[in-house]
Amino acid sequence: MDRVLSGMQPSGPLHLGNLVGALSNWVRLQDKYECYFFVADWHALTTGYGNPSQIKQWTVDLLMNFIAAGLDPEKSTIFIQSQVPEHAELHIFLSMITPLGWLERVPTYKEKKEQIKDKDLDTYGFLGYPVLQTADIIIYRAKYVPVGIDQVPHLEISREIARRFNYLYGKEFFPEPEALLTEFPKVPGTDGRKMSKSYGNAIYLSDDEKTVTEKIRTMVTDPARKRRTDKGDPQKCPVFDLHKIFSTEEEKKEIIEGCSTAGIGCVDCKKILIKHVINTLKPIWDKRQHIIDNPSLLIEIAREGSTKAKKIAGETLKEMKEVIGWIS
Amino acid sequence: MDRVLSGMQPSGPLHLGNLVGALSNWVRLQDKYECYFFVADWHALTTGYGNPSQIKQWTVDLLMNFIAAGLDPEKSTIFIQSQVPEHAELHIFLSMITPLGWLERVPTYKEKKEQIKDKDLDTYGFLGYPVLQTADIIIYRAKYVPVGIDQVPHLEISREIARRFNYLYGKEFFPEPEALLTEFPKVPGTDGRKMSKSYGNAIYLSDDEKTVTEKIRTMVTDPARKRRTDKGDPQKCPVFDLHKIFSTEEEKKEIIEGCSTAGIGCVDCKKILIKHVINTLKPIWDKRQHIIDNPSLLIEIAREGSTKAKKIAGETLKEMKEVIGWIS
Ligand code: SF4
Ligand code: SF4
Repeated sequence: MDRVLSGMQPSGPLHLGNLVGALSNWVRLQDKYECYFFVADWHALTTGYGNPSQIKQWTVDLLMNFIAAGLDPEKSTIFIQSQVPEHAELHIFLSMITPLGWLERVPTYKEKKEQIKDKDLDTYGFLGYPVLQTADIIIYRAKYVPVGIDQVPHLEISREIARRFNYLYGKEFFPEPEALLTEFPKVPGTDGRKMSKSYGNAIYLSDDEKTVTEKIRTMVTDPARKRRTDKGDPQKCPVFDLHKIFSTEEEKKEIIEGCSTAGIGCVDCKKILIKHVINTLKPIWDKRQHIIDNPSLLIEIAREGSTKAKKIAGETLKEMKEVIGWIS
Repeated sequence: MDRVLSGMQPSGPLHLGNLVGALSNWVRLQDKYECYFFVADWHALTTGYGNPSQIKQWTVDLLMNFIAAGLDPEKSTIFIQSQVPEHAELHIFLSMITPLGWLERVPTYKEKKEQIKDKDLDTYGFLGYPVLQTADIIIYRAKYVPVGIDQVPHLEISREIARRFNYLYGKEFFPEPEALLTEFPKVPGTDGRKMSKSYGNAIYLSDDEKTVTEKIRTMVTDPARKRRTDKGDPQKCPVFDLHKIFSTEEEKKEIIEGCSTAGIGCVDCKKILIKHVINTLKPIWDKRQHIIDNPSLLIEIAREGSTKAKKIAGETLKEMKEVIGWIS
């Protein structure tokens, strides 16, 4: 079975966009690949070094969401990055062979630095983010990394670093990781913009039923539909974008028909969506509650996952050292 | 007892200059301080990544020289850097808080890059050398680093990084390492320039008696003394610089007198030096031979040293994580 690796930064609560865009996809991948999923807590330090204890709180929450959303420790290796210090060791080796220029021209580097103005990101670690990311991937010799089409360039530097290693030491040791292209549906937030925790428009996995209901009830709709009697256009309505993800074909047809003829009101249209979103979140809420009631569960999962990950990572490091002649 | 830390890169054979300038000083420090001495094999990768197996050969040779020169595993913690991956883990944390600008203006950075033209040093790891070096020092919370006066500025960035950590996380956790100023005598090579393996003018600890004799016999002297009957000036003679290190007060007086009156010839003057250098190297040669005859000895010393180092380094990491709230 080919190996797949993916990680997520513990930098805040997860929302529907993260679920639909990544986690649900990971859950599906578990049956087709040998999967490694991890909480990228060291990566969260690149922007969050000012408050490490908050990262640790989100680490627990993220791991909880991994399990609650359906990642299965029996099928996949689920771990916390900083519990596998082998990544840090490989990072040292890769740092020696990674040209500075490659890092400076990573497209996300300047972008992110411009986006995040309230933090000092002129650090050595922020520049080296892709080196650590490469270590994360190739230490498991993962074949695939699930990414959306817009993220394919981000993987290029990892491919380059793996290639440079293989070239320098004369052996095809690290496979160049490939993008496992994934179609991510558009997930708008309650204000119609892309769902994002920085916009304050997100529906969180940790919200309760009442909160979710209220957030969708007050969500923006097609601005042309001011009154119940106005006709609407679902293609211009963010509520309908969510219907596309959560509702049945039958329901979608009815809504297209009803909205464009003013046959259905936004209140009723949203009720259908609320029902589906809650049905989606209900099992996640239940599992989150189960985990909260059994605090040793997560500790056990993290321990087992890191043990499995350390074993594979340690083997790679050992073999890599043989390849480069690094034997003490 | 205050802690002292120092390391040396395994990048070639050790010569008299390294012995007199560093190792002999370390041997003396052992009785006054709690000492940590290490082979900086990861650091050697910053310039030697093209040939890691050669670094490993020099690692064994350097460790052998440590012991042969008198470092005592009973007194000091003697280890190989890459056998203590805790350094790599602390390096990740420090990389997140180290401003790029600090690294770019380290005086040695540009200097070294200009000196070493035959290797591509435009790498991430070469730029980050001082971050790893800081991790090496502060992971033992060392108070002192023995350095010559010209190296004091190199320590400044480690002090700054330690200070920044303490400031960011509101606790005086890492002591700012201080220079333990050491007077290093001038050690000329056989051509009169500073002894250096890149000049091909060095007397190596691994040379044998015949080689050492021959190297000193043909060493340059005061250029004014072309013939036996010419008077010389010991202050202009590199042979005399070595006498200053190795010969007795009595002998030095005789040579000053004899050289400036043409009472002593260079051949006889050098014979005195040869005797002293060989007497200095003899016990080192014997110990080297003993180690070569007992190959398990070094392995055992490295294992014990890294176990001791890992214990202290691991404790520091654990406490550091508590300080910053990094508890999984
Ligand atoms: S009926 Fe539904 S799709 Fe149409 S505008 Fe209202 S919320 Fe949007
Ligand atoms: S006698 Fe000794 S000190 Fe004088 S020039 Fe010759 S080697 Fe140098």
